[in-house]
Amino acid sequence: MSERVELSEVAPRDGLQSIGPFVPTETKIALVRATYEAGLRRMEVGSFVSPRAVPQMADTGEVLKVAKQLAGLECTVLVPNRKGFEAAMNAGADRLGLFMSVTESHNKANLNRTREESFADLAAIVREAPKGTKIRFNLSCTFHCPFEGVVPEQDALDVIERVVALDPEMEIALADTTGNASPDQVRRVFEHAHAAWGKRFAYHGHDTYGMGIANVTAAWEAGCRIFDAASGGIGGCPFAPGATGNVAMEDVVWLFRRMGVETGVDWAKLLAAADLAASVPGATPGGAMRRVPAARLAA
Amino acid sequence: MSERVELSEVAPRDGLQSIGPFVPTETKIALVRATYEAGLRRMEVGSFVSPRAVPQMADTGEVLKVAKQLAGLECTVLVPNRKGFEAAMNAGADRLGLFMSVTESHNKANLNRTREESFADLAAIVREAPKGTKIRFNLSCTFHCPFEGVVPEQDALDVIERVVALDPEMEIALADTTGNASPDQVRRVFEHAHAAWGKRFAYHGHDTYGMGIANVTAAWEAGCRIFDAASGGIGGCPFAPGATGNVAMEDVVWLFRRMGVETGVDWAKLLAAADLAASVPGATPGGAMRRVPAARLAA
Repeated sequence: MSERVELSEVAPRDGLQSIGPFVPTETKIALVRATYEAGLRRMEVGSFVSPRAVPQMADTGEVLKVAKQLAGLECTVLVPNRKGFEAAMNAGADRLGLFMSVTESHNKANLNRTREESFADLAAIVREAPKGTKIRFNLSCTFHCPFEGVVPEQDALDVIERVVALDPEMEIALADTTGNASPDQVRRVFEHAHAAWGKRFAYHGHDTYGMGIANVTAAWEAGCRIFDAASGGIGGCPFAPGATGNVAMEDVVWLFRRMGVETGVDWAKLLAAADLAASVPGATPGGAMRRVPAARLAA
Repeated sequence: MSERVELSEVAPRDGLQSIGPFVPTETKIALVRATYEAGLRRMEVGSFVSPRAVPQMADTGEVLKVAKQLAGLECTVLVPNRKGFEAAMNAGADRLGLFMSVTESHNKANLNRTREESFADLAAIVREAPKGTKIRFNLSCTFHCPFEGVVPEQDALDVIERVVALDPEMEIALADTTGNASPDQVRRVFEHAHAAWGKRFAYHGHDTYGMGIANVTAAWEAGCRIFDAASGGIGGCPFAPGATGNVAMEDVVWLFRRMGVETGVDWAKLLAAADLAASVPGATPGGAMRRVPAARLAA
């Protein structure tokens, strides 16, 4: 039996959140449907953040309402604080995506508070969430920070260790927010984390510096079996204008196809979803596979 | 002391050969000079093939004449047969780049002869070349063939073994001609080849399917220390129109920088060379790093 990888589609959230003009709710829902049709069964559909800070995510509740009707789809919403937690619980999200940064300066820039403040708030949410609530704890800038540069691996492991201690089984995502992680670094951090705290870690990567697929490969080889990606490779980085965004779902799926790993994805439908994502006005598409004619013909 | 990698610039040959309109000899020479200025000391400056088959390479002799004057630059020219061998020897190339394909159908399409015919011709060149002649034997389609699909690893190893037997030390390049090699495959083939026949293997990769940097990483981790790349990622594949070409030198150099591996390259001058390559009329540039504003500022 071939190995299997679990893929989480993040185009509706990470792929869209940096777009200036408001993407109509129907477009967001169409994107959710298209990626679901392609076979993806896990998705970040939005985030319950301040609509003043991220106006693009103001309709997450409406998108979630539709997404929840898709059979077998696990809907994650991002939650930066208690207010978001309450909104997510009220809206009936399947999974909470808590998040904070490994580095102080990025946490302040992104969340307007210190890491200690974020950690205290998120730790309380983990403690107080009703039994059975699925949670993922996302750690931004685990490898590289737009302000502090390369993150020392021990610093990252120290933060991971504190998050691990909150819950014996909670999923933790190690995120390469800038796309400037290197594959040797990703491999070492995942190997260490898996050895010390078990196989509960997911990888969230960007492709800005061209190392996205190399980093996915490194995390896979180090035992990671849960990956985020965005169809169409959409998701510009606000700190690097013109750069591409999330690692493209179609590139990740092709990689795993070629390595003989089961993804559960219908290739032709995934390309259609990727084309749809790339066509959203304001989106900054990336990735290689949409441009390969031979791959269009693959079943 | 940090590890070191040897990089061979192939933009003047692989990057330009598929361009329809003739690239003026001065432009080719400017590209050779720019990549040399960036610190690259090994280069495929052209090929001695039939100018009817590849008119773009008709001026290789002139380009080589200038390139040979650059101190410390090792100039390789590609040689598909005896006629090319004689031309290359007469022109005083520093290294002969013999080439044939691992797959029969690609060898016929690319060289208009069977693998046995190519092998016999190239084996005679290896035998008869004056003592001290530097030779590299390039094996196209070692991993994937546009006609035959994924190449069974044993088939590749069988061909490699025959080439190995020609000379105890000759450098042999394993080429991913289509860009559809997968990193697990690259790793296995290099590990096997290094274990069986020593560390004499180079990697030549394309980035068409987005796995270029992942494959370079895999080959590096398997012990490969010689890599081909093209500044600007130029080099469209005639079998996949619109697809990007050779793995971009600037992406490869950034990868090694981040992994702490010495390349000998001046980053700012390399970006200038990459911009020049990308600006050649008819070129199909690729790669990520030219588009990353933050990387422009790196020293």
